[in-house]
Amino acid sequence: MIEMSRLAGRGVAAATEALLRGDLSAAEAVISGDLEVDALQRAIEDESLQLLAGRAPVGTDLRVVASGMRITAELERMGDLARHVAKLARLRYPERAVPAVPADLGDVVRSLGQHTAAMAAHAGEVIAAQDVGAAQALEDRDDAVDRLHRQLLSVVLSPDWPHGVRTAVDLSLLGRYYERFADHAVSVARIITFVATGHRSRSTAPR
Amino acid sequence: MIEMSRLAGRGVAAATEALLRGDLSAAEAVISGDLEVDALQRAIEDESLQLLAGRAPVGTDLRVVASGMRITAELERMGDLARHVAKLARLRYPERAVPAVPADLGDVVRSLGQHTAAMAAHAGEVIAAQDVGAAQALEDRDDAVDRLHRQLLSVVLSPDWPHGVRTAVDLSLLGRYYERFADHAVSVARIITFVATGHRSRSTAPR
Repeated sequence: MIEMSRLAGRGVAAATEALLRGDLSAAEAVISGDLEVDALQRAIEDESLQLLAGRAPVGTDLRVVASGMRITAELERMGDLARHVAKLARLRYPERAVPAVPADLGDVVRSLGQHTAAMAAHAGEVIAAQDVGAAQALEDRDDAVDRLHRQLLSVVLSPDWPHGVRTAVDLSLLGRYYERFADHAVSVARIITFVATGHRSRSTAPR
Repeated sequence: MIEMSRLAGRGVAAATEALLRGDLSAAEAVISGDLEVDALQRAIEDESLQLLAGRAPVGTDLRVVASGMRITAELERMGDLARHVAKLARLRYPERAVPAVPADLGDVVRSLGQHTAAMAAHAGEVIAAQDVGAAQALEDRDDAVDRLHRQLLSVVLSPDWPHGVRTAVDLSLLGRYYERFADHAVSVARIITFVATGHRSRSTAPR
């Protein structure tokens, strides 16, 4: 699971760079790299089911295995969303004459990439350390991502948006991918908090 | 879980109607109705953890409980996505003078609502009957949703799109909500297939 977090974080960071630099081969690398995340999910799922069927774990061990299957599903989605960002980098390439991200939104998109990559790394640390306190830092980062997402949308939807419908649609979907990626990272922390304490932090439900 | 499927299906159907008719109070009902889906998820999760901690089930029972937690997470997301559709119905209301869905896209959106509502009902039947064969029908419906989603996007992104950036962005997100809703319904069927047979149908991973 820690390796899945690392791959998802590296994926979203690389996809963001590929998007900003219009680097098609870097985008392709992220897209094929997601297969590794998917393979890890299947391996964890298979091992979990074997563990559940064979050793009949009880109590805490059991909760860890059961919630581990939910956590890997969240991490797998984070990998998917990194892939979606990468797909936008190659979308309609090479017909697109303009950059995927207009210069005036470069900083917002770069920040979204940095925050979400950091959240994936942080989710990995929460998994590694079972550190419930560290989960709060993820909620704070998530608030920052939500603010950047709203900022992106407000620019795209401003009456004097000059870059056309196609770019507006791409950027709206892009913003949603980052926002969902961040939500899944928060879900990972919430599931771990729930398993460790039996209590929900705000809500364990992904939004 | 069957009740969650029913509520998610009713939600996406009602949200679609609210959107097409510009019915703000119907949209609000869907938004508040999603709380019921969330409450069911929490109840199932609590009961699952108690079951796992207390009775130490083994073998198939254990797999059912563990995968049940994953299925409820999928159903909870379906409820969220129905709520997102409903939110588009009230978004920027009442400033928006034009309908949320232009007349020429009414049929596509109506079909998306009907297919996804049917998929939620179908997922409930798969859960109720543990019917692996019925899971294939969900894959077929999902293909139909993907086709409608592509059709919607191709209209929105056509060079002569007359309805402006804001409506284009809303409809792109709307299409994505339906597509994700359908994917989650397919995931439910795949998890059940996996538990029942130990084999994956295509892939158990949500896309």
